[in-house]
Amino acid sequence: MRFATLTGPDGTTAAVRIADTWHRLPAADLSELLGTTTLARAAAHPGEPVTDGSPTLPLPHPGKVVCCGLNYGDHIRETGRARPAHPTLFAKYADTLTGPESDLVLPGGLQVDWEAELAVVVGAVLRRADRPTARAAIAGYTVANDISVRDWQYRTTQWFQGKAWDRSTPTGPVVVTPDELDPSAGLAVVCRVNGEEVQRGNTRTLVFDPAELLSYISAFTVLRPGDLVLTGTPGGVGVARAPQRFLADGDVVETGITGVGTLRNTVRFTR
Amino acid sequence: MRFATLTGPDGTTAAVRIADTWHRLPAADLSELLGTTTLARAAAHPGEPVTDGSPTLPLPHPGKVVCCGLNYGDHIRETGRARPAHPTLFAKYADTLTGPESDLVLPGGLQVDWEAELAVVVGAVLRRADRPTARAAIAGYTVANDISVRDWQYRTTQWFQGKAWDRSTPTGPVVVTPDELDPSAGLAVVCRVNGEEVQRGNTRTLVFDPAELLSYISAFTVLRPGDLVLTGTPGGVGVARAPQRFLADGDVVETGITGVGTLRNTVRFTR
Repeated sequence: MRFATLTGPDGTTAAVRIADTWHRLPAADLSELLGTTTLARAAAHPGEPVTDGSPTLPLPHPGKVVCCGLNYGDHIRETGRARPAHPTLFAKYADTLTGPESDLVLPGGLQVDWEAELAVVVGAVLRRADRPTARAAIAGYTVANDISVRDWQYRTTQWFQGKAWDRSTPTGPVVVTPDELDPSAGLAVVCRVNGEEVQRGNTRTLVFDPAELLSYISAFTVLRPGDLVLTGTPGGVGVARAPQRFLADGDVVETGITGVGTLRNTVRFTR
Repeated sequence: MRFATLTGPDGTTAAVRIADTWHRLPAADLSELLGTTTLARAAAHPGEPVTDGSPTLPLPHPGKVVCCGLNYGDHIRETGRARPAHPTLFAKYADTLTGPESDLVLPGGLQVDWEAELAVVVGAVLRRADRPTARAAIAGYTVANDISVRDWQYRTTQWFQGKAWDRSTPTGPVVVTPDELDPSAGLAVVCRVNGEEVQRGNTRTLVFDPAELLSYISAFTVLRPGDLVLTGTPGGVGVARAPQRFLADGDVVETGITGVGTLRNTVRFTR
């Protein structure tokens, strides 16, 4: 099944897709919905059709957005690192997220780069969970682009300040449940800039799969319904190219995953 | 002035200290209070005295807990690094925090280390703030210990997984307003383990002072009332000793800052 947060003339609403039509669910967004019920239970009681809404940021209020770096073999190679024994994790906040069609508004002059990623939506409370428990707690999958400000990311050893710019990480457009989508079977993860393909990876080659990441994170911190885990990006990022390539004002970044959908965001430099 | 979140038989309440007595403020804790008003405005209308409450985690629901590493000259030297041009920042979540007298419950066998720190409580919305604006937005200061799980911290390049164990970072016991406390004038930051002093630094020697940190962070993400910024730890951490020293089950960690107070937390290893 497919879920979304829709925005329309009357504000936002959580929604479920039934036979090519969105149907209202009793929450303003998927964060609120997952705070009170599961997607499956909510979908059992769909409300009226929504004909004038379009998908916006599906989960606007996650308590945690935990990201994994260096999780595809080809991306690990392009950064010159060894295949890791443990996932490399860093944090974002809810403020970092933005919608599937939102502009990426950033100060001009920054080294802004793309990172197409599969994002996992947590559907249950997880603490010290083994992998089967973690797998069963996956509410669904969505698309993310972990847009990175490289000059700030590499100012120090810690990437956070290049990874947590407000409204820089688009996610969406929908959340697809695991019964419809299996990353281990292989989903293409693609990024295009102004129509030119710059990344193409496959989730089959993830070093740490979604259940393993959730289990690992839950060893030290609780994950709750609506939290997001970004699973890392495949090869092809701009900073690893020769010469390096960064996004320019007006560039259109499209980020797509097979079976989920595509984000389409335009870079807007300020000043 | 001094503020706290008190816990007693009737739950928790925000409170202000007047003439050696805590007085009730109209919020369950300082996070909730700062969500609706400023400390100064709240203190102008103190409620009844609270005689049966003791300080607990002052800010249980910060949206952001941003931490600075490598911010004291002596600690930078003991880690073998150069004096930084930019603050090294990493993130925690609200779940990472615990109270001023709470046990530090962690799995046995981890390399658990101390990091006494001055923490800054944000009192206003800050985005792209210059230093004077940031300085004026400091609601107060409290004590923190950025307890670090060193083996997990150094599993990868990114420290987050060693820094974000649930309920591992004690803070409190009170929040002291800037009119009473000036870190640039020099506050002793002290950590003792089982009564033995293991760290003694002075906030006068901070590389990046509180206003500078808030201004820097606000360049990329909004800070809101009740958010916390941890300013880094002075020399003397266990991992940098020869031989290395880590906390053991039952160890009592005291963390104090002149003019604020002292945290007293006991390590409890599970399994």
